[in-house]
Amino acid sequence: MRLSRYFLPVLKETPAEAQIVSHRYMLRAGMIKQQAAGIYSWLPLGYKVLRRIEQIVHEEQQRAGHIPLLMPTLQPADLWRESGRYDDYGEEMLRITDRHERDMLYGPTNEEMITDIFRSHVESYKQLPMTLYHIQWKFRDEVRPRFGVMRGREFLMKDGYNFDLTYEDAMHAYNRHMVSYLRTYERMGLQAIPMRADSGPIGGDDTHEFLVLASTGESEVFYDSAITDLKFGDRVVNYDDRAECAAIVKEWTTPYARTDETHDVALFHDIPVERQKTSRGIEVGQIFYFGTKYSEPMGATVVTADGSRVPVHMGSHGIGVSRLLGAIIEASHDDKGIIWPEGVTPFHCGIVNLKQGNGDTDAACDAIYAALKAKGLDPLYDDTDERAGAKFATQDLIGLPWRITVGPRGLANGKVELTSRRTGESEEMSAEAAIARVAEIYATI
Amino acid sequence: MRLSRYFLPVLKETPAEAQIVSHRYMLRAGMIKQQAAGIYSWLPLGYKVLRRIEQIVHEEQQRAGHIPLLMPTLQPADLWRESGRYDDYGEEMLRITDRHERDMLYGPTNEEMITDIFRSHVESYKQLPMTLYHIQWKFRDEVRPRFGVMRGREFLMKDGYNFDLTYEDAMHAYNRHMVSYLRTYERMGLQAIPMRADSGPIGGDDTHEFLVLASTGESEVFYDSAITDLKFGDRVVNYDDRAECAAIVKEWTTPYARTDETHDVALFHDIPVERQKTSRGIEVGQIFYFGTKYSEPMGATVVTADGSRVPVHMGSHGIGVSRLLGAIIEASHDDKGIIWPEGVTPFHCGIVNLKQGNGDTDAACDAIYAALKAKGLDPLYDDTDERAGAKFATQDLIGLPWRITVGPRGLANGKVELTSRRTGESEEMSAEAAIARVAEIYATI
Repeated sequence: MRLSRYFLPVLKETPAEAQIVSHRYMLRAGMIKQQAAGIYSWLPLGYKVLRRIEQIVHEEQQRAGHIPLLMPTLQPADLWRESGRYDDYGEEMLRITDRHERDMLYGPTNEEMITDIFRSHVESYKQLPMTLYHIQWKFRDEVRPRFGVMRGREFLMKDGYNFDLTYEDAMHAYNRHMVSYLRTYERMGLQAIPMRADSGPIGGDDTHEFLVLASTGESEVFYDSAITDLKFGDRVVNYDDRAECAAIVKEWTTPYARTDETHDVALFHDIPVERQKTSRGIEVGQIFYFGTKYSEPMGATVVTADGSRVPVHMGSHGIGVSRLLGAIIEASHDDKGIIWPEGVTPFHCGIVNLKQGNGDTDAACDAIYAALKAKGLDPLYDDTDERAGAKFATQDLIGLPWRITVGPRGLANGKVELTSRRTGESEEMSAEAAIARVAEIYATI
Repeated sequence: MRLSRYFLPVLKETPAEAQIVSHRYMLRAGMIKQQAAGIYSWLPLGYKVLRRIEQIVHEEQQRAGHIPLLMPTLQPADLWRESGRYDDYGEEMLRITDRHERDMLYGPTNEEMITDIFRSHVESYKQLPMTLYHIQWKFRDEVRPRFGVMRGREFLMKDGYNFDLTYEDAMHAYNRHMVSYLRTYERMGLQAIPMRADSGPIGGDDTHEFLVLASTGESEVFYDSAITDLKFGDRVVNYDDRAECAAIVKEWTTPYARTDETHDVALFHDIPVERQKTSRGIEVGQIFYFGTKYSEPMGATVVTADGSRVPVHMGSHGIGVSRLLGAIIEASHDDKGIIWPEGVTPFHCGIVNLKQGNGDTDAACDAIYAALKAKGLDPLYDDTDERAGAKFATQDLIGLPWRITVGPRGLANGKVELTSRRTGESEEMSAEAAIARVAEIYATI
């Protein structure tokens, strides 16, 4: 993309309403615009990151064998009356009456609807196991929406639901989700720690939250520092292999890690004192096993091998897709702006032309731009008339991990500059070498 | 995808509520499930087609230089009070009150919000021309939703908005949209004819609808048969070239083509009588130029070269993404089921194992499946225990354009069968030849 043809409305001033750094930088980098309390437009740069995150979630869900579908945003109230949650859910549920006076609601989650789909179409235990998921906009009418997309009212969530014949099968689904989530977050450059949690309005016995450590997190967390040394890396997982998934879950759940809701002081003090850590954490996902809580009242049953009919064991599993943008920025920024991890960056590489209108720098930038695109990369070429200082400030603010700077003096020696946003280090090299280096970096992402 | 691990709930019976063929087949092929009047879940097969259509729309919009963003589904009523449409829009607008008693609505379209984004962030004529678009769920509270996704209440639409300095610039944006739409629909296997139309509640002077000819269409259309001979084909268009875009628009708007709303009997009778055609048509898109209708009341202005401040010229341009599934099926089916055009098919190729459990056919199917995937294709392998007849019926119903059939008798002679869903013709060949043929077909799509 050429910046002169893009819509990137960066702000010079820090907006007064933003209390935390991710909200400030998302506004200043022209990623979002508030349209009402807790309701945002995703401007082009923000939308691009949202799509990259969504794409990683889709890939990892499908790698684990989960099947995508899409449920609507609006739901009939009657489904929620069947589960008993219509009255329980409280004021966070946005209730709507249509022109025929039918009670509807904007879905805050989808346990009821997915159970309805299941009971309408699945009859036999032979169709199990099955995990269905979607990525769809949700609404929770928070009384005080704040922190930008971190606690918005309209938000994008991946929610998945497993249907299994037995408790043991459902626990494998639970483990499979934990494993796939570990990989999902790591691809986004995040360390998200699974912590034993409370189930809240979803219900159920087994549940883990995934928390990203950040000083602005909403929860206090307590953990054994051993857990932050764990890396998922590029291990190849057979998601059908119960023992393999269970072993990975054990690896990540053995070190102590809990939120204030489930914190156990005695257990915590069993950890060697130098490994006892407390911090704050941002919740970016949660997995639940809740057995037959929905399948029983709603009649989601299957016929078993012996001809009897039993309710299925279920769980639900969420990733806060839009909230992840805020969490990633909270975890990865400096005082100049955002530092995107390569896995989610909106553009792979910036190109800064220090002397727009100079025949040599223009030609060199055009060639670098074309070469990066030919390698399947997505560069942002700042071809505007701004001064060099302003161009660098924009690049630092929007946080592309790599920048190629092209100026007349360097070009005279056959050199451009390749700069890492994270370290700030620059290196002079030929344009060809810079292109090859950037391509090499993204080849492994 | 292996069918044994997929969720494809095909129905044997024709559901009573479905009046038109696309609705019947979408229900029978397990593509959608109604959750409330005019509100659907997109089951896995339907979701896949929806995503393919969305992807084509994104690609063609971006090819034309249009910039994607994403506006929320809910909007504050105040924005619509500024344009004067809050009271005008009538009962089709779903009005919502949140917990703080603020008036909200579920967006039926986005002229007001995009104008708000523009006026908040754009100051100078130098930032023009600009076209922003999104693909987002909309809601129109139709009094009698019917025909499945063809006239739903919650529906997915691409809506784009151009901002230009002058009338002439805006007319180029209009033409650019028409050209990009012609290409978009053709990639989906559709012939969508631009017809002069009425502007309705969007307002404006210039507008064309795109209609797909089908006996179940909601509009009566009148056209010169010369227009159905036009093909966009694989021409390379420079979307910045005004003359080139204008010439393509002229090519498609010179032959007479109008809906009953704008039909001119005298002009129609000037066409040679053998070319005078009437039919019914399904609207799948519409483009509008409406000048300063929104920019003036809402203060969306730019500073020009001479320092004066002028309201921008705007237009809006929609493609009915979810409705397109219905339109494509209406235009492409037979009495056995859907016939997907290659551009939008949910899976590229079916693989039918005539004797599941037989070592030879299983191994051959596994190898074909792996080979197709290695070529970047997305096959659906029917590895279930169903009888051959039932497998063929499912394949015909869900309408994949190509099928490779593997049976023990053919295999003994080193042959499989490649069948075209459209023609019904089968050809015996080696597995390698069938794989190569399928790959070759999709290489040009």
